[in-house]
Amino acid sequence: MSQARASKWYIEYAAPSLGHMHGIDGIIVSRQTQFQKVDILKTNVYGKALALDEKMQSTQEDEFIYHEALVHPAMIAHPAPRSVFIVGGGEGATLREALRHPTVERAVMVDIDDQVISLSREHLPEWHQGAFDDPRAEVISTDARKYLEESKEIFDVIITDLSEPVEEGPAYLLYTREFYKIACDHLSPGGTISVQAGSAAHPFLLAFSSVYQTMRTAFPTVRGFSVNIPSFGLPWGFTLASKGVDPLSMSREVVDRVLAERGLSDLRFYDGLAHQGIFGLPRHIRAGLDSANLIIEDNHPIFTYH
Amino acid sequence: MSQARASKWYIEYAAPSLGHMHGIDGIIVSRQTQFQKVDILKTNVYGKALALDEKMQSTQEDEFIYHEALVHPAMIAHPAPRSVFIVGGGEGATLREALRHPTVERAVMVDIDDQVISLSREHLPEWHQGAFDDPRAEVISTDARKYLEESKEIFDVIITDLSEPVEEGPAYLLYTREFYKIACDHLSPGGTISVQAGSAAHPFLLAFSSVYQTMRTAFPTVRGFSVNIPSFGLPWGFTLASKGVDPLSMSREVVDRVLAERGLSDLRFYDGLAHQGIFGLPRHIRAGLDSANLIIEDNHPIFTYH
Amino acid sequence: MSQARASKWYIEYAAPSLGHMHGIDGIIVSRQTQFQKVDILKTNVYGKALALDEKMQSTQEDEFIYHEALVHPAMIAHPAPRSVFIVGGGEGATLREALRHPTVERAVMVDIDDQVISLSREHLPEWHQGAFDDPRAEVISTDARKYLEESKEIFDVIITDLSEPVEEGPAYLLYTREFYKIACDHLSPGGTISVQAGSAAHPFLLAFSSVYQTMRTAFPTVRGFSVNIPSFGLPWGFTLASKGVDPLSMSREVVDRVLAERGLSDLRFYDGLAHQGIFGLPRHIRAGLDSANLIIEDNHPIFTYH
Amino acid sequence: MSQARASKWYIEYAAPSLGHMHGIDGIIVSRQTQFQKVDILKTNVYGKALALDEKMQSTQEDEFIYHEALVHPAMIAHPAPRSVFIVGGGEGATLREALRHPTVERAVMVDIDDQVISLSREHLPEWHQGAFDDPRAEVISTDARKYLEESKEIFDVIITDLSEPVEEGPAYLLYTREFYKIACDHLSPGGTISVQAGSAAHPFLLAFSSVYQTMRTAFPTVRGFSVNIPSFGLPWGFTLASKGVDPLSMSREVVDRVLAERGLSDLRFYDGLAHQGIFGLPRHIRAGLDSANLIIEDNHPIFTYH
Repeated sequence: MSQARASKWYIEYAAPSLGHMHGIDGIIVSRQTQFQKVDILKTNVYGKALALDEKMQSTQEDEFIYHEALVHPAMIAHPAPRSVFIVGGGEGATLREALRHPTVERAVMVDIDDQVISLSREHLPEWHQGAFDDPRAEVISTDARKYLEESKEIFDVIITDLSEPVEEGPAYLLYTREFYKIACDHLSPGGTISVQAGSAAHPFLLAFSSVYQTMRTAFPTVRGFSVNIPSFGLPWGFTLASKGVDPLSMSREVVDRVLAERGLSDLRFYDGLAHQGIFGLPRHIRAGLDSANLIIEDNHPIFTYH
Repeated sequence: MSQARASKWYIEYAAPSLGHMHGIDGIIVSRQTQFQKVDILKTNVYGKALALDEKMQSTQEDEFIYHEALVHPAMIAHPAPRSVFIVGGGEGATLREALRHPTVERAVMVDIDDQVISLSREHLPEWHQGAFDDPRAEVISTDARKYLEESKEIFDVIITDLSEPVEEGPAYLLYTREFYKIACDHLSPGGTISVQAGSAAHPFLLAFSSVYQTMRTAFPTVRGFSVNIPSFGLPWGFTLASKGVDPLSMSREVVDRVLAERGLSDLRFYDGLAHQGIFGLPRHIRAGLDSANLIIEDNHPIFTYH
Repeated sequence: MSQARASKWYIEYAAPSLGHMHGIDGIIVSRQTQFQKVDILKTNVYGKALALDEKMQSTQEDEFIYHEALVHPAMIAHPAPRSVFIVGGGEGATLREALRHPTVERAVMVDIDDQVISLSREHLPEWHQGAFDDPRAEVISTDARKYLEESKEIFDVIITDLSEPVEEGPAYLLYTREFYKIACDHLSPGGTISVQAGSAAHPFLLAFSSVYQTMRTAFPTVRGFSVNIPSFGLPWGFTLASKGVDPLSMSREVVDRVLAERGLSDLRFYDGLAHQGIFGLPRHIRAGLDSANLIIEDNHPIFTYH
Repeated sequence: MSQARASKWYIEYAAPSLGHMHGIDGIIVSRQTQFQKVDILKTNVYGKALALDEKMQSTQEDEFIYHEALVHPAMIAHPAPRSVFIVGGGEGATLREALRHPTVERAVMVDIDDQVISLSREHLPEWHQGAFDDPRAEVISTDARKYLEESKEIFDVIITDLSEPVEEGPAYLLYTREFYKIACDHLSPGGTISVQAGSAAHPFLLAFSSVYQTMRTAFPTVRGFSVNIPSFGLPWGFTLASKGVDPLSMSREVVDRVLAERGLSDLRFYDGLAHQGIFGLPRHIRAGLDSANLIIEDNHPIFTYH
């Protein structure tokens, strides 16, 4: 990490009056694809970083936090996940974490933007670590909702690793009540679904609380959790829905035991104590999630800053 | 919160290559005191904000998180805290939270900078809410370490609410092994001490881990915990040391019971579940704290960015 | 001027990829009037500053350059200006400079936004220096175009001191071919008109060159000139049209002689050599002005960044 | 030029409270050489740009202004320049402009940093345009002052194209009274010397006025002039000293005639009218230059922000 004030910066706005500045040493890729603006940057503090439509997706230094938090609680809350469906996740790290579970026999990843996948393959090997080439993995570039609608396959775990559900974004229709109905229909009994849901800071809870309430229309148990991913500049929210086990009820010991059974006691971020930490939401965040009354629908998007 | 991009900004650097930008609508105070630069700003997202030496101390919108997290775990880990000693805490909100506990008979607050106290009195009434005038409170402007050295008084809880322990800062000598020895000598059996300890993001763990290890030289039980204060732009670290109860061993139910007994079931941030959340550090943070080997001493400061 | 890096900034964008940052020590006024956003700031380098709709209008340290350049060439190019009409100019400094000419018997200033006038009166005395109270001055808050259309008065000099002619701005209809026709009709034989016309940097010449070409539809002689106003961050363009003397033909000696006759040999910015300097446009700027083919009309605005 | 707000920026500080932000699309080179930090950026507004030690040196879109202004007045003020000595000028564009004059038989360019030369050769062909390979050019990487001290060669024109003369910079000893004595000794009768001298904005006149006064210790005629190079964010100052012709006395017609004789009537920036423009300094700048009393000496640097 440099000791001299940076002169080259990536500036991201979480809101019209809130910005985060990352000193950058390089711009590896800066390109408009059919679907979004892709920047792969070399930041000074966090190493390489992927930004889509000027929103940081993950960085070399802390992507392990994001991807472990997105994947493992959902996988642990299922007793023996054999099949996984990943919506988005172009960097390949969500796939990587899912495939760590030895119970997994098949993982289907559907990201609409094949350029993000190929750029990640080339420039972000620290993310995918070969996961794209795992024989259990199938990687498809198409509309994940359409794919699911046309498929009869049932999955044990679904993970949606997408940009935030803003109106104009490519991901919006993968956050609606209608989509969660489809997802639920493709989930086995005892199945779980994990969703990246936007900022968990209380002044910016619109996306997180709307996703939480929208998922509650489709799934019997839904829990929000909050994770610190430093490069995001704000605490981050995730939702985990389940047809079976309630993740909030899983004790530290149970989580550690399941991880041990799967040979996953050496993760970098996640274990039983971390599980307690992320699900231990403070009162004001619980109140914010519970009091939200906005359901995202195909014809009813949310309007948040982006 | 404004929907138009701000043109006036407060920019704070967490590191030479990492900055946070707050859109501002007003500059209420901007002054150099004998000890530090004081800015009281009107931010667009977080309301009024106090910055000392260009480090955000607290904001109107989320100071409740900071102050509840700093005060209540230490107060709850003591069975019946009667006396409290606050080091720093010029805004008056740490005092405010301590005085909420009906067991408290006396709270001594010592902040070296009387201008911070008087500016807070005048401009930050939402913070102190009259706490300065509580008959149980004694507010003194002097060097807290000297005060404690010359005093024979014993306290149940000590809370250090200071700027970070950087070499040139006014607060450095209140973070050393020698100071914690003094503090320990002024702590009753079963006493606890809570310390604001800097960023809890793993690339910036130097202050937090050094404070943690330094406190371990003086106290039998020391625990780190991590709190999301959105305006800080990074997760924040605190340490809680105890001569009695280990706060990590306090269950959700126990915390909620003690809070109920003290009539504090309606805090905004803190309760039993939040307690689990903040003490549920992930593996990499625990590893970072445990592996640190730097002890802060009067003649051995730490060098971090500021 | 402070030697420490500022933490509070006013950031202005000349284009989506070009910004200027001014360290600020205070925000004196920040208000939305009926017509525009008004900010009166205390900048560290340039002292007090007025910004309208987030465009810097003038600063304490260099407003003398702007106002002398806007006013004196037009006044000098007229042999004995007795009456002056000022469009805009809410700070009062354009009026101040016009009234320096002892030939002036009457100066009418029409600015649509009376709040800008009253805020300037109160907070910017260094600008107006009492000009508003000069017995020769008449200051009116109304639409200047409407005023001129309804008036039969003829003026020797007209000065338009407005924000840039962007489509949505309040000033747009004071930059059109139709307006210049009206202005020309209210100008005495030998009369001159001076116009602030936007950036004179070649990548941003749209406003300047359009104003220049549009004025050429109404006046026999039109000249562009360029002035360095440091706080603007870019060289600035003005146009001077004349029914009589061509300002480009005025030698250094002639300018100095007229100034001396009027007791104005001690201006801070302007004299004969400065006159040569500002009218000595380089080849690429002359080419840019000459090759522009956009005429601003009531129904045909220009679209530039703002 | 992009219409979307940039997310990646190069930020340069002219002073601790004054910054300029350039949106960037690429970082072509970012490297520390033995002498300085070299950044070659792709800016959105100005195309490719070279920055040394975080000071913009020149950009693709407006380097023609800088290099024409630095070179041609000095060349035109000499009746028939046959030999040219260039101090610095690593991009090769100063050499390019000097070689345009058909009278030139030999041009020696000495830049201490061969990496800047080789990076410019590779990445900035729009700058040098093959000048490095002109048979009249000799390009040497060494200390220009030492080279001149050890040489007996006499030149008609010397051009110093260096970073600003700040104390720690590599260029400082090429701005001192002692250096100008050496330069004067290597200048033929009638010889001229042109120097890039820092900002020409009145709040930042220290370097320009010190260079001006220091050159006056060595040369009979010294003139300052000011040029608008938009990417610099401030007007820029140059000094031209002469053993023969006074450049301020050259009329528009004379400049145009000499240019025509040398086949240089089609320059982009410079001609007789532009000559009048750049030498037509306003009163306050002339006053600032004249009243400066700081002479830069080998043991007496100037301290300016950098």
